[in-house]
Amino acid sequence: MSTDEPARARGRRTRARILDQAAGLFADQDYTAVSVAEIARSAGAHPHQVTYYFGSKDALFVQAAFLLLLRDARRLEPIGTRQKSPASFRAAVSRTTLALPALPVVVRAMSISRQRPELQKLAQHRLAILFRQAEHYLARVLDRRGWTLDRPIEVEVRTFWSAVLGARLISESGYGGHSSDIDVAGVLTIHSKGAD
Amino acid sequence: MSTDEPARARGRRTRARILDQAAGLFADQDYTAVSVAEIARSAGAHPHQVTYYFGSKDALFVQAAFLLLLRDARRLEPIGTRQKSPASFRAAVSRTTLALPALPVVVRAMSISRQRPELQKLAQHRLAILFRQAEHYLARVLDRRGWTLDRPIEVEVRTFWSAVLGARLISESGYGGHSSDIDVAGVLTIHSKGAD
Repeated sequence: MSTDEPARARGRRTRARILDQAAGLFADQDYTAVSVAEIARSAGAHPHQVTYYFGSKDALFVQAAFLLLLRDARRLEPIGTRQKSPASFRAAVSRTTLALPALPVVVRAMSISRQRPELQKLAQHRLAILFRQAEHYLARVLDRRGWTLDRPIEVEVRTFWSAVLGARLISESGYGGHSSDIDVAGVLTIHSKGAD
Repeated sequence: MSTDEPARARGRRTRARILDQAAGLFADQDYTAVSVAEIARSAGAHPHQVTYYFGSKDALFVQAAFLLLLRDARRLEPIGTRQKSPASFRAAVSRTTLALPALPVVVRAMSISRQRPELQKLAQHRLAILFRQAEHYLARVLDRRGWTLDRPIEVEVRTFWSAVLGARLISESGYGGHSSDIDVAGVLTIHSKGAD
């Protein structure tokens, strides 16, 4: 059967397997601790296939980091959906987003793509997907609960993610304050249609 | 006269000159494009003095980046002080902070210190100074104008800086949106004592 499989379909599966294994490895270990050889080995592929499909370890890392974040973000959606008041929604979504395991991985990926012009299109595309996914989710919640925002939904989402990423950058670069020093929930303007 | 100068005072001046020259070089050029030799040369010092006073190029870079940001932030204070309404203050401070030339340098420095445990104390100390300077400034403005906040002043300042740093990280990692997509001004809760 595998010999009948068209080369393109086989290639797609190999590529997906490499990305998936890389995501698993980068989720557990530091970027520098994971080698291309190790990723290839756990995906049952050859190291040159990693380069063939992804170009470089950096490019694969950026893709894996955003894959992890998109998965994490999906997983927290039910926590928000359960909240019955705008205040509890703002608090629950902020708290859980700041604690997403993929968040430090993505901050690292964004730090790398800042330095690598050839990766910026990739990072831009993945950020656009992250924002769109968040907008769709938030639109559904607002619609279902009859809540509203003080600004356009895309601005609400980007402002929220700016505060989350900045908060993580601050805490990871060594700032030892409590996370309660940063009011990410207060960045969200979600409220009931009358007042809140 | 210079032979009479105590060695400690001379050392302090050499150290300050190296830091100042490094700040100037890092403000104009990428981190990787500036060498320790070049910093030493423009400070009239020996390369080994750079290492002696700062430990490493990374440590010097973190110190230089925050020196630039603290200077930049001081320079924008009069722009905020001039604003007569809370809304124009929020808008002016956000717009000018996002455009500070030192901002990308500090995002880079924070990305580096995330990876280097020995630099985290340094980054933590410099962030604490940045926050304290901002708190003192904001307290003076609030007092003078009779404005108020919806949260403690230290939370206001840290939340604002999180949004600013995150916005910069997003835009520099390749996200091509307009800066108006991120509502940093709306993160600030400064308003008149009645309502706003």
